[in-house]
Amino acid sequence: MDDEASGHWRDTTVDAEAASRGPEAAQAVAHIRQLRQSIDNIDSAIISLLAERFKFTSQVGVLKAQAGFAPADQRREDYQITRLGRIAIDAGLDPQIAEMYREFVVTEAKKRHQRIAEAGGDPGVLDVYA
Amino acid sequence: MDDEASGHWRDTTVDAEAASRGPEAAQAVAHIRQLRQSIDNIDSAIISLLAERFKFTSQVGVLKAQAGFAPADQRREDYQITRLGRIAIDAGLDPQIAEMYREFVVTEAKKRHQRIAEAGGDPGVLDVYA
Repeated sequence: MDDEASGHWRDTTVDAEAASRGPEAAQAVAHIRQLRQSIDNIDSAIISLLAERFKFTSQVGVLKAQAGFAPADQRREDYQITRLGRIAIDAGLDPQIAEMYREFVVTEAKKRHQRIAEAGGDPGVLDVYA
Repeated sequence: MDDEASGHWRDTTVDAEAASRGPEAAQAVAHIRQLRQSIDNIDSAIISLLAERFKFTSQVGVLKAQAGFAPADQRREDYQITRLGRIAIDAGLDPQIAEMYREFVVTEAKKRHQRIAEAGGDPGVLDVYA
């Protein structure tokens, strides 16, 4: 297998060149493009929701810092693990994906809580994108 | 600092016990609970959208396997990186969070594309939660 063929196997750009391989490839490219538009729309919605989520968790971080609470709350996390796993199964999503999502957002939120606490409860440390 | 105090600093359960520390703590607990309800609603929406996203990428995986395309498409990823970074900044979200989200979903989608390809284009390998 030469380098180009090997590269093809590892990575395929879904474009006009891929479509030119034959009628089945052309149909696959057209269908993939259509699906990708829906995927992009979903991503726009999720990014907007993540923006709102981090605004809320930033407020939680300020309240925690002012009240002298720690960034972490294990009982809250246990509640979220159970809840999101149930919602995932109801929605037809692999609950492992839901747990990876939860771990990602909670870890990042706690890091930001820590930064707010270190800044004496000032949420301004996170405000570079607001 | 004894173990319990150290534990308090690392983890605070935001509950009636935390609220009993004083009026400011009580107010913080009430406000955090309110914010957490909004955070939970956002998580429900995101999990539902992720379920739809993985249904779409599973379809993409089948089409790629049938057409002999690789799971990865670097040009598509470059497009997503630029696009989601822009959407994040417009929405007031740290673009690093958007990139972490993208890497998470794309990595998981590619793993599933690989499994579909190995099953000869049969999406049934992922259907345990459908």
